[in-house]
Amino acid sequence: MRAKRMPRAVRERQMLDAAVRTFGQRGYRAASMDDIAELAGVSKPLVYLYLNSKEDLFTAVIRREARALTEAIRAGVGPAGLPADRQLWNGLRAFFTHTARHPDGWSVLHLQARTHGEPFAAEIAALREEIVAFVTQLIAAAAREAHRDPDLPEREVAGLAEALVGAAESLADWAGATEGVTARQAAATLMNFAWAGLGDLMADRPWTPPEEEAGPAPAEPAAQTG
Amino acid sequence: MRAKRMPRAVRERQMLDAAVRTFGQRGYRAASMDDIAELAGVSKPLVYLYLNSKEDLFTAVIRREARALTEAIRAGVGPAGLPADRQLWNGLRAFFTHTARHPDGWSVLHLQARTHGEPFAAEIAALREEIVAFVTQLIAAAAREAHRDPDLPEREVAGLAEALVGAAESLADWAGATEGVTARQAAATLMNFAWAGLGDLMADRPWTPPEEEAGPAPAEPAAQTG
Repeated sequence: MRAKRMPRAVRERQMLDAAVRTFGQRGYRAASMDDIAELAGVSKPLVYLYLNSKEDLFTAVIRREARALTEAIRAGVGPAGLPADRQLWNGLRAFFTHTARHPDGWSVLHLQARTHGEPFAAEIAALREEIVAFVTQLIAAAAREAHRDPDLPEREVAGLAEALVGAAESLADWAGATEGVTARQAAATLMNFAWAGLGDLMADRPWTPPEEEAGPAPAEPAAQTG
Repeated sequence: MRAKRMPRAVRERQMLDAAVRTFGQRGYRAASMDDIAELAGVSKPLVYLYLNSKEDLFTAVIRREARALTEAIRAGVGPAGLPADRQLWNGLRAFFTHTARHPDGWSVLHLQARTHGEPFAAEIAALREEIVAFVTQLIAAAAREAHRDPDLPEREVAGLAEALVGAAESLADWAGATEGVTARQAAATLMNFAWAGLGDLMADRPWTPPEEEAGPAPAEPAAQTG
């Protein structure tokens, strides 16, 4: 059918599918182009012809899996008109569903790609920045929704987004390693953890430090940069 | 003084100090034993005599930095009699203060040690398990404090602890990379994110999914194990 009209695209997809599985399960260093070619049902020279090198193949895998993950989250969140907690719940379910269905892709993105230096780490940093920016927008929108006159400083919103993304990454690893934890349960755990907290914050009920410590804390340096 | 009575311990500490800085700033692979010896003010053969190999030196660095971090958190949390939110606030401030003061040690633990396979990844997995177990106990104690008859399932508590630890890791990286974010601010952001959420949960006010979705979700697989 269409396969006959675009054999290259189809074959390339087969190679990338085989590469995701091989890199995800064996790691970048241990994975061999022989394994990937065999799993894809093509010759090794064809893999090199199409994808050039193991490094280029790994980069192509990272980009494809990153795009699939961000598209799944964006599609899951739904239209901008939904209430913020509903958007967050939808987005988290989409995230945990996608990572549960694509454990090898998640391993490539979260573990393998950070594990082998540049240029892979830069690809992952860009992906993470995109997701953090998306979550930051979502939290800022929720803040605007809650307050006519939003008073959450931009930096606070950025920190909240970093916390949420870090929590989601950690829970995706945990759900993948813990038998019987569904995507829905992982999303519900994170909503319980995060939303009531964010929700209180939006409603001007922030957590406040114990009173005796309300002054500037002694001997706590600013975080060093870099 | 004591230095004369234990030159080996002192020299070893100097080597480890130099190694933390070198590994943290250059990465495991790029760091050379020459650099480390020079920074420590000793000869390279002495580094090999004391620490055996680059791999053993890196393992010793991971263990020392891991111990320092867990001890800082445990000391920060304070006595078990404190209210749970106070223990969490204290523990988070200790964590963010320690990681801000020791950015090279944090880089070794959070980035470098996960980046170069075994046996280092196993050391870090053990550290992380210890911290998650500690946080799990803290959340379970808070649940007992809030309910006479605790009804948070053990798995839910474990998931909350994973979320909190992941959020803290993410915020520590963010605070380290964002000028002017203090340890106290990072801890307050995470308390705002987490505590009101956990607090509501302890008070039997969990976040609940939208009503139209209260039934089993379609087409969401259990997370795969492994």
